[in-house]
Formats: sequence, C-alpha cells, structure tokens
Amino acid sequence: MPKGNVLVGQSGGPTAVINSSLAGVFRTAMERGYGKVYGMRYGIQGFMDEQYVDLSTHIKNELDLELLKRTPSAFLGTCRYKLPEIHEGKEIYERIFELLDKLDIEVFIYIGGNDSMDTIRKLYDYSLLTGAKQKFVGCPKTIDNDLAITDHTPGFGSAAKYIATSTKEVICDALGFSYKKKNVTIIEIMGRNAGWLTGASALSAGEDCDGPDLIYLPELPFDVEAFTNRVRGLLEDKDVVVVAVSEGIHDANGKYICEMTAGSETKDAFGHIQMTGTAAYLASVIHNELGCKTRSVELSTLQRAAAHLTSRVDVDEAFAVGGATVKAADEGDSGVMVVIERLSDDPYQSTTGIHDVHRIANGEKVVPREWINAGGDYVTKDFLDYMRPLVQGQYNPMTVNGLPRHLNLKMNNSEWIK
Amino acid sequence: MPKGNVLVGQSGGPTAVINSSLAGVFRTAMERGYGKVYGMRYGIQGFMDEQYVDLSTHIKNELDLELLKRTPSAFLGTCRYKLPEIHEGKEIYERIFELLDKLDIEVFIYIGGNDSMDTIRKLYDYSLLTGAKQKFVGCPKTIDNDLAITDHTPGFGSAAKYIATSTKEVICDALGFSYKKKNVTIIEIMGRNAGWLTGASALSAGEDCDGPDLIYLPELPFDVEAFTNRVRGLLEDKDVVVVAVSEGIHDANGKYICEMTAGSETKDAFGHIQMTGTAAYLASVIHNELGCKTRSVELSTLQRAAAHLTSRVDVDEAFAVGGATVKAADEGDSGVMVVIERLSDDPYQSTTGIHDVHRIANGEKVVPREWINAGGDYVTKDFLDYMRPLVQGQYNPMTVNGLPRHLNLKMNNSEWIK
Repeated sequence: MPKGNVLVGQSGGPTAVINSSLAGVFRTAMERGYGKVYGMRYGIQGFMDEQYVDLSTHIKNELDLELLKRTPSAFLGTCRYKLPEIHEGKEIYERIFELLDKLDIEVFIYIGGNDSMDTIRKLYDYSLLTGAKQKFVGCPKTIDNDLAITDHTPGFGSAAKYIATSTKEVICDALGFSYKKKNVTIIEIMGRNAGWLTGASALSAGEDCDGPDLIYLPELPFDVEAFTNRVRGLLEDKDVVVVAVSEGIHDANGKYICEMTAGSETKDAFGHIQMTGTAAYLASVIHNELGCKTRSVELSTLQRAAAHLTSRVDVDEAFAVGGATVKAADEGDSGVMVVIERLSDDPYQSTTGIHDVHRIANGEKVVPREWINAGGDYVTKDFLDYMRPLVQGQYNPMTVNGLPRHLNLKMNNSEWIK
Repeated sequence: MPKGNVLVGQSGGPTAVINSSLAGVFRTAMERGYGKVYGMRYGIQGFMDEQYVDLSTHIKNELDLELLKRTPSAFLGTCRYKLPEIHEGKEIYERIFELLDKLDIEVFIYIGGNDSMDTIRKLYDYSLLTGAKQKFVGCPKTIDNDLAITDHTPGFGSAAKYIATSTKEVICDALGFSYKKKNVTIIEIMGRNAGWLTGASALSAGEDCDGPDLIYLPELPFDVEAFTNRVRGLLEDKDVVVVAVSEGIHDANGKYICEMTAGSETKDAFGHIQMTGTAAYLASVIHNELGCKTRSVELSTLQRAAAHLTSRVDVDEAFAVGGATVKAADEGDSGVMVVIERLSDDPYQSTTGIHDVHRIANGEKVVPREWINAGGDYVTKDFLDYMRPLVQGQYNPMTVNGLPRHLNLKMNNSEWIK
C-alpha cells in the first residue's frame, strides 16, 4: 500500500536553524517514499484555516534544500497558538482531524518548543481516543535550550555562537576606548526563565579575550544594589567592565528588573508606561551611581535570526532531528519527541533518540545551581564544557551580491514568476 | 643613510577593518626598510604620556598579520582628543615633537576620520613652521563614510554589509510572525549627520527579500506625524512593516527624535532625564497610535565591531590605504591623506591617491539630495549602485574553538607569557 502524506509545521519563536529541521523532514520523507510533504502556513493556527503549501513546489532540488538550511526565521511562518484541552474544545480537534483526513496525512510533525510539544501531546491523546491513524511526532527547537530530556535543543548552539562572538566583539570595542576614562557595558541576552544563552557569553573568554566580568542568569534573584557595589569594586582595579544579563533577571520578589524603570514613572509621550530594557536600566543605574560612561547593547532578535553565523554542529543536528521525526513515525512511533543524546564530550558525538512527549511538554529545563558559581555572577567550567561542543564549525552562507541568499515561499511559485 | 622609524596611531570610533590599515602600515614600512614601527597607545593622547609599543614585538609573522586584519576595534586603543590650535597650545606641540625626535620618527601616520585629519593638518602645519623633518600622513577610516574627497572610507563597506545582512535577517524574522496580526519593526542605525549606513539597509532588497519599507536619513527633517500616517497607510495593504532610521534623525527645528521622549518626562529611577533610543521612541509612538505590535532593534556597537562579517573589498582596501600612507611619506609627501579613487563601477576597480589634508579635515560628506527619493523615505538606484561594490566578498575569520580568533597586545608580550 503506498504511503500517505506528511504534514509539518513550525511554531513559537524561530531560530537560525529551524529550517534545517524542516529540510531534514522533507528529505527523509522523500527518501522513505511518502507521497507529499505539506507545510502548514503559520503553524496549526494557519492550518485550521486551510493555509498550507506543497513543499515540493518550493524545494525543487538540492540547492534549494541547502538554501533552506541557511534561511533564518520560520520558512513556513509560525504562530503562538495553544490548543484547548480536548474536553474544552472538541470541535477544534474534529476540524483538525477532518483536514488531516482530507489531505491523507499519515504523519504530523511539529517543530517547536514546550508549547509546541503540548500541541503534539494533545493531538496524540485525541488520536488515541478516536483511533485516528495519524502519527504525531515533535521536533525540538528553541534558542532557549529549556526543553526537558534532550541534551540540548537545535537552535541553541547557533544562538550561543552568535552571542559569544558578538560579546567578544563588544568587549574588544569597549577596550579600545579605555584611556583615562572608565566605561561599563551591559549586554542584554534573551531568556526569560532559563539562562543558557546568557551563560554562553562566557565562551568569549580565551587566550585573546577575558570574557565578560559578570554574568547574571534569571535562575537566581538579582539585587541591584549588590550589583552596583560589585561593579564599583571592579572599577577600582580596571577601566573596562562588561556585564552580560538575561532579559529575565528579577529581584527576590520576582519583579523583573526591566519593570523597575516603569515602576518609577518612565512614561512615553502618551503617558503610557514603557518597558525599558533591562540593560538600559542597569546602565542608567551605573551611570548615575558611579558616574562613569555606560553603554547598553541589546542583542534583540538578531540572536535568533543570525543565519549568517551558525554552528555547523547545530545545523547538522537540526537536520538530523528533522529526519529522525519522519523515521520515528515511519517505524510506528507516535506521541513522541525526538531528542538529542550526547554520546561523548571529547570528541563530541551525539545521536538521536525518541521520548514520550508527555514527559517533555510544558516542562522547563533551567541552568542547574551547581553550574553557576557560588557568588551567583558567573557560570562554571562544567557549564562551559557542556556548551563548547555545540558552537563548533561554520556553515557559511551562500552569497549573492555580497549578501546571504535565503529561500522564501515567494521565490519558486507561480505568483512570483508571473 | 638608514631610514628612521614610523609612528602610527588610531583615533576616533573604531571599525571592523581599522586594524587592516594598521597591518598595511606595518607591512609596507617593513618592506620599504624603515627601522621600527611604533604604535601609539590610545592615539595622540596616550602618546603624549609616552604610551607606545614596538609593533614588531606583537606582529611576529604573517599569521599574526592576518589575525590583526581580522581583529575588530582599535588594536592600539583609540582616543577622542582634539589638538589645540598651534598658537593656543604651543607647549603641546613642543612636547609631541620632542617625543618624535626622541624616537627618531620619520613618518607619523594617523588612522581616523575628520577629527583625526585635523590632527594631521595641525602637526603638519607646525612642522612647516619649525622645519621639523617628519612627514605627516592621514589614513582614512570611518564607518560613517562622511570624509570628503575620497570615494568612500575604509570601514564603511563592512559596516554596510553587516547592516544589510542583519536587516535581511530581521525582516525574515518579522515575516514569520505575521499571521492575523500586524507588526512594525524599527531598526536604528548609526550616523548622526550622514545617512550612508542607514541607506545601506536597502541593500537587503533583492529576489529573496523586499528590504525595509521605509528608510529615513538624517539629511532630511523627520516628521513624526507624517511618519505615523505613512506606516498606517502601509499597514492597510500588508501585515509586516520594517523601517530603518538613522540615530540622528531630527525634526525641522533640528531637535533629535531621540530627545523627544526625554522632553516628555521620561526619567530614570533617579529622576534624571534618560536618552531613549530613536527606534524605541518611534516604536512606542506606532504602538500607541496604531495599536499594533512593535519592536525596536538597535544595531549599536555591533555594526562597527562585527569583524566576523566583513567585506573583502573593504578589508583589502583598508590594507591598501595603510600601505599607501607609508609609500606617500617615503616618496616625500606630507600633510596629505590617502584617498580611494574609484576607477570603474562594473567590474569594480579602485586605486589609492593622495590629497591635501587641509581640504579634508573637518569637512563632512553627507548623502546628496538626489540619492534620496522625492518623498524622503528611501534611497535611489544611484545610491545602491554606488554602494553595492563595497560589500562584496568574504574575509572569513580564523576560528579557534568555534569562535573568531583576534590578536591583542597582551598575547605576544612578556607580561602575558610570565
């Protein structure tokens, strides 16, 4: 009996390698003899409105596949949509499964983080209740590295590499200006609850760079006064201080540091309270308290979109986990997420496995306390040993006219050609 | 008679290729048989305190030279120091020339922008008055591309490439999230008075990307209300709007947009007025007026420090102008700056020339009105034709442990070794 079709979607915040996983799904589905590979536009949200594409009309050859692996953001578009519990929204499930049958979908793959795995879990549970034929498999993705069970998540290594490289460059820049004046730079890095990415800034340290002086993760409470005193102390011995902070640092009561400015009457032109960045706030505190020149650098969406600076290990693993989702379904698994298992640190070796999605969905893996130093202002050698293999190797962009070339949905379709 | 020594300094804001010029100075000075090449620590300011290094103790071989070309920020350290007029500070000039004689300096090279060329001009004028033997030659450098006479400045092409690449990635990211909700992203780019870098964001447009929707340069007055209406109009037809703005945009009265928040009572925790970024301010205006999701991205120092993403044309030209400064002095020229002359657009060809520094110092080259569209919200094809050759080619970092390796002053000296 010929195989049916595969449906794949992307969900949540993008990464620089989320499309490498999509490429892996497509490639393995073709190799294993599935019919078509449909891509949901804007995840399950768009799919429910019958927004989907036939990927073979967009990925026509190996070059397209390679371009896709180098394209940032979600190629298919993404969404942040939470399915209701089954008993609260049965009609939504009926609608989705009706569409799956209509398109003869045999395998449903969702590339995403915690919330996306929650979607896989619910659809799988529904399929058990109704005896639906489809297999549901999750493909891990998040720059935040906060998924449970898997050693790490695709997307994390490339974001970490971008952050470490940018931190190194920012430190270099700050050092150039240090003659007879002190300066403090504060770099703000993504991660509301998990400090993996902020800790990655420490990878900048080596023979040619001292790395940041202080690193603050959201796993521990942050005290503005203690921080100010710490910087004051450092400035007695050196002229340039660089600090990396998570956007999610908060005080002992759980109040985000970025809310502190707002709390003290920072309003915009219209009288609305404005969220000022964590780094900008701390830079103003240091400037006002210590009088030195300060600068804040927010890495912003650049850190999840910088496809021009990815880790080869990450791109390859993202591709591999994409393929492994199809393989898992083809071998009869459902209600699982593919995980990365580390076989060896040095030389670094990894493989893929599968794991019950119920144990992953909605969990959150934060940096263990023992990987943060006693003072709570740096990461330990164990943290760095864990990280370092994940940022190795380049995956250079293909450039046209001096800029990286990406693949997009407009390029190969008739709308574009006419 | 054996040749004397060369003294070279770096001044003003750094670029990703300022050290490539330093490498060019060193290489040509060695080739032309000069004695030593001394580097001023922190420009003329550090030099007056007798802060300098013998570059041959830091650049020991061709590999070091290649690392230097890939190192961001000012390898020697930089300063922002304006020499007094000769009649106002004769003792300063006497001090400098005393040190030049002490070190047997024959050639004085200063790598910098407008202010640095002012330093060359004054030292040269003083040498004419006193009959001092030294030659004074300026080496152009600035990401802002605002130096007169030269076709463009080293440092500009690499910053432009970084900006265009990052803009492309940010646009890609914004498009991924556009289902059933509109979003506006505002990217803030360096350039107080000249919009060259902001205009470079338009290079992101091509077969695979539409580029920013609007681009605002500081050469023209900016009207917040007209801007808001323009965005409102665009949002009627599309879901994602991306705008690139210069940090230096200002209203018709010359008031900077980034001052507007401050003017409307944005104060920090200490009651001090806080400079909020231009992009952050405009994002809050759009959010409040139009109600859609907004995001601001400030490229910050990353755009001048991103040695991991340079233009090969730029690196090579920076190296060439460095060498050309020594050649000019060796051939008897003084009081000049090396300029880049464009010989051909396609294929792109350039050469170096020299020009009287009096005609360059303190001048400022802005984007000509005819290279901005009639509506004042985009650059023209002529602008892009001028720009495009300058971002071509890669100059890939040498990586160690997955991160770019830089050269620094600590690495090869005894202090580091002990």
